[in-house]
Amino acid sequence: MRVLVTNDDGVRAPGLLALCESLSALGEVVAVAPDRPRSACGHAITLHKPLRAVPVEMPGGGRGFACSGTPVDCVALGTSEHLGGPPDLVVSGINLGPNLGQDMTYSGTVAGAVEAAICGLPSFAISIASYEADDFAPAARFARYLAEAVLARGLPPETFLNVNVPAVASGGIAGVALTRKGTIRYDNRIELRTDPRGMNYYWLTGERVDYEDHPDTDVAAVALNRISVTPVSLDMTDRKLLADLKGWDLSWTG
Amino acid sequence: MRVLVTNDDGVRAPGLLALCESLSALGEVVAVAPDRPRSACGHAITLHKPLRAVPVEMPGGGRGFACSGTPVDCVALGTSEHLGGPPDLVVSGINLGPNLGQDMTYSGTVAGAVEAAICGLPSFAISIASYEADDFAPAARFARYLAEAVLARGLPPETFLNVNVPAVASGGIAGVALTRKGTIRYDNRIELRTDPRGMNYYWLTGERVDYEDHPDTDVAAVALNRISVTPVSLDMTDRKLLADLKGWDLSWTG
Repeated sequence: MRVLVTNDDGVRAPGLLALCESLSALGEVVAVAPDRPRSACGHAITLHKPLRAVPVEMPGGGRGFACSGTPVDCVALGTSEHLGGPPDLVVSGINLGPNLGQDMTYSGTVAGAVEAAICGLPSFAISIASYEADDFAPAARFARYLAEAVLARGLPPETFLNVNVPAVASGGIAGVALTRKGTIRYDNRIELRTDPRGMNYYWLTGERVDYEDHPDTDVAAVALNRISVTPVSLDMTDRKLLADLKGWDLSWTG
Repeated sequence: MRVLVTNDDGVRAPGLLALCESLSALGEVVAVAPDRPRSACGHAITLHKPLRAVPVEMPGGGRGFACSGTPVDCVALGTSEHLGGPPDLVVSGINLGPNLGQDMTYSGTVAGAVEAAICGLPSFAISIASYEADDFAPAARFARYLAEAVLARGLPPETFLNVNVPAVASGGIAGVALTRKGTIRYDNRIELRTDPRGMNYYWLTGERVDYEDHPDTDVAAVALNRISVTPVSLDMTDRKLLADLKGWDLSWTG
């Protein structure tokens, strides 16, 4: 049994090391992860320049590679014959910080799980829901528990799981919630600043101001200290809108 | 009436210029697009370094900004108060090359439309389904036609449209098809090469080998020279798998 691990915080991130150590109880673990932080890189793939993948020593044992590309590149390389061929499972994480609601689309860690699903491999992304977290042990133990379940039962084609673990000690975790994607609201502030040469530049910023608090969403589950497991489909087709569009009578012929 | 235009091929790309010119019949058009090609950058957002947005002259008139960031950054900036506030519509394209099936997830052009939808603005992405295309006129005219329809009818929250136009002259276009996301198969080849210093590197490559040919998919529509319009939802929750997961009895308590 072989598990490929990746993330977007980089091959030296404590969350990845904790994940590798925990999953090594299940079989061979190979880490192929970015050689530097690549947070918020989305589902970017490197097609226009070459990639490196340099072997690195992993503190907990097992094989590791520091890759010059994105998490998607890491999964492409890590599932290729060059680094051992398709694994039985791909796990991406443990991400430092939540990947809830629409923030999933920005996340390189979630994109690693998306890419595995595109490759036809069972996968999940796992994040700890605080940027200040320093104890990855509960999330790492849950990753192993979930990995065993996914390996035993499989996942349907074109799906993966997005997992968010509250940043509390094991005893404070109030069980597992199966959730749908929620919505987080940001104030979307952009700061205009002036550089030492008098030229303008911008910083994207924005504070979380609110969230949709339906109890069945990922954001609500984590707020209640529950581990959120959201099943995600690669088929983003909106069936209701597809039916509605028929009434638009789009009859353009050039 | 104001339209924000972006893409991932860059602010000088012929597809963007054709789109701006065509949409200018509807009102004010502002282009905020990457200062260089950013193909396959996915839904990447720039949080860890500053952004520039430099005014550029647009050959067909209107305002244009060359942005140092990704298409997602362009939409964030272009909808902010710094560049005029939220527009009535966001259109991303015209992308050189198809964005069909799962390839949608890699596309910076599609990510521009995703970001607009996250911001609560109606949007669509439009691509011409060939990397060799040089006539953007039919796609640009269809973009205007569709823009008028979207402005008149609106789109539901958390949705956008993904449009692919066959690369044929207007007379060869066989109408409009409302489609769901299909599947394209690639051989996923990765080339191992050796650099002049004897170090290994990799090129991601892969030829399209096949596609799912259900007649209601985007890939099948374009193969039949039809314009494909796929309604896309930001809610990727897989409802069927959500129900099935209840049978897994995930009872982990730490």
